[in-house]
Amino acid sequence: MKIIYFDNSSTTGYKPQCVINASVVAMKYLSANPGRAGHTMSTRAAMLVEKTRSKVASLVGAVSERVIFTSNCTEALNIAILGSLKLHGHVITTAYEHNSVLRPLFEMKKQGLIDITVLRPNNFGVVTADMIERAVKPNTYLVAVNHISNVTGAVMPITEIGKICKKHNLIFSVDGAQSIGYQQLDIKEQNIDMLSIAAHKGLHCCQGIGCLVLSDKMYIKPLKYGGTGTESYSLLQPRELPEALEAGTLATPAIAALNAAIDWNKENMFKIRTKLTSLSMYLIERLNALKKIKIYSSADILNGIISFNAADISSQDVANYLSKEYGICVRGGLHCAPLVHKHFGTTKQGMVRVSFGLENTMEEVDELIKALSKIG
Amino acid sequence: MKIIYFDNSSTTGYKPQCVINASVVAMKYLSANPGRAGHTMSTRAAMLVEKTRSKVASLVGAVSERVIFTSNCTEALNIAILGSLKLHGHVITTAYEHNSVLRPLFEMKKQGLIDITVLRPNNFGVVTADMIERAVKPNTYLVAVNHISNVTGAVMPITEIGKICKKHNLIFSVDGAQSIGYQQLDIKEQNIDMLSIAAHKGLHCCQGIGCLVLSDKMYIKPLKYGGTGTESYSLLQPRELPEALEAGTLATPAIAALNAAIDWNKENMFKIRTKLTSLSMYLIERLNALKKIKIYSSADILNGIISFNAADISSQDVANYLSKEYGICVRGGLHCAPLVHKHFGTTKQGMVRVSFGLENTMEEVDELIKALSKIG
Repeated sequence: MKIIYFDNSSTTGYKPQCVINASVVAMKYLSANPGRAGHTMSTRAAMLVEKTRSKVASLVGAVSERVIFTSNCTEALNIAILGSLKLHGHVITTAYEHNSVLRPLFEMKKQGLIDITVLRPNNFGVVTADMIERAVKPNTYLVAVNHISNVTGAVMPITEIGKICKKHNLIFSVDGAQSIGYQQLDIKEQNIDMLSIAAHKGLHCCQGIGCLVLSDKMYIKPLKYGGTGTESYSLLQPRELPEALEAGTLATPAIAALNAAIDWNKENMFKIRTKLTSLSMYLIERLNALKKIKIYSSADILNGIISFNAADISSQDVANYLSKEYGICVRGGLHCAPLVHKHFGTTKQGMVRVSFGLENTMEEVDELIKALSKIG
Repeated sequence: MKIIYFDNSSTTGYKPQCVINASVVAMKYLSANPGRAGHTMSTRAAMLVEKTRSKVASLVGAVSERVIFTSNCTEALNIAILGSLKLHGHVITTAYEHNSVLRPLFEMKKQGLIDITVLRPNNFGVVTADMIERAVKPNTYLVAVNHISNVTGAVMPITEIGKICKKHNLIFSVDGAQSIGYQQLDIKEQNIDMLSIAAHKGLHCCQGIGCLVLSDKMYIKPLKYGGTGTESYSLLQPRELPEALEAGTLATPAIAALNAAIDWNKENMFKIRTKLTSLSMYLIERLNALKKIKIYSSADILNGIISFNAADISSQDVANYLSKEYGICVRGGLHCAPLVHKHFGTTKQGMVRVSFGLENTMEEVDELIKALSKIG
């Protein structure tokens, strides 16, 4: 059975050959530890790492040494949220957040360290800058917002929220997992203080690498302590960035892949977006023609993430049926984002999520529609 | 200029083709998120991850679900040390520890949470089980020991220390960064509670993956909170292992590489050890014949890590000279392990460290000796 992969917002299914090649070259010829010695091999690896760091910085309008390599976007978000923790402060966030934001926040709340306001989206599916501003309390220190919802594809007005954060002197943390590689971001212009990035989604890199990008004003506590190749005599973690937040041997092959992925993405972003828009438009049109399908994603957005349900059938059952009978890979369940399901009343049913990638086709959408027309 | 790579205890220079191939196959055909959906692609990735987990478990006598994938050995050690933290307790450790152990411990000490006893090695270069036992206080809860020193290659008597930890009901954490892939370990037989592993050294895997292996008695706090693919409705981290300690998307290509690396290592461990022993013996013999060379590694161990100094010359200067003039890559400085240098009185000078790998040759040792004979 041919596989139809519609789970690209988890990890994009297509990895460009240049990304794979870069990783192979790093494993073969750059396997020394970057930044740990002055010899040729270590220096070569370090040069590649720093080149990639500066490429990430350019991509999002940041300063190179304030790009921190992490193992994934979850680690970036944890460093951001736990590292900027203020004892007994207040945090504003949204119902769209992934568990990688909610779980560190609610763990801190459980420990009695913070209060949290979770804002639900308005009727247009958006948490506006006004709504954020109205939620500000005297002890608010952090606003944590998901740029693009991994559940419905809803897009938050990052630029406007950034202005409010600047006005009230609040730290602004953005979860860019679903947006980087698809949308342009500029942390300076958008007043973002902490931007967390996944490499294995829109940038089409492999899994195993992410980034936390910090604004000039941020100094945050490390999550991990260890070897940095700097100030080795000191028993305490050095304060200088990026080393302060990068203890341990870096994942050079994945960083090499990211280096290639950013270049590839630059050339292909428009093509990818066009493809996702046309596929989304087509799917929504065809879904609307089916009976008993409820769509949760807005027909105005069309960014490749479309969630729906078929009558009252459990989304997991639909996903299992599609995979088993048609080889169609979609995600059922809660997509690690429980509060948006509470908002939509789908905590029990979940949602069936289709998320498109560059290699998907209209014919594959037809296959999905054919399969769906037989249920519900 | 031909490169001679003598920095294998940082990262082994040679990566077997089967390891590289496994990573490529994962990038091409297994790029869905493991354990996040029930569809074919996600299930395939999950099966590879679980197969690798069970292989790591077999390698060290553990239970599969108590093998935690981390981004490197430093992360494993941080989860172990910070996750098992007891407020106001006492920790015993050794001067041989890497900063990945010392820095989390001394950070906790700085915060007033723990007291630390750092044991210096005896005249044979060893911290014995007796020395550990004599340091036990009523509030001691953790013993953290480096199995093999990354600076001198000294080997600690893990089995005997394990017995003492069991007798006094202490948590026993072992840093296996330099031993895994070279020595056999069995956490059950050796009473190890938390074993931290690097994949990119002795196992000859790529960078970007490590493991923390826990004994049946351990329950520790997570370092990171986020998506686990389990209990997605819950705003708090699930307690079940391994998910509790594995928030975020796993590095499937690196895990695939580890899967292949363990098989490769099983077939080649004896060959590697034989090679490192003969090279070590030859280097020590040749160094002894040079004037003004002081060797810090024991001639009884011969496990491929040999540190020395040339007269009073800074080890960094020697390393730079060897790299620049002869293309020989060795490590100077403190090797991220400051207290062993304090013990040997080499905090200022550092040590020149040669660490051998499978591809090194006697002729390369001759080159090094030739270069060294011209200085000092």
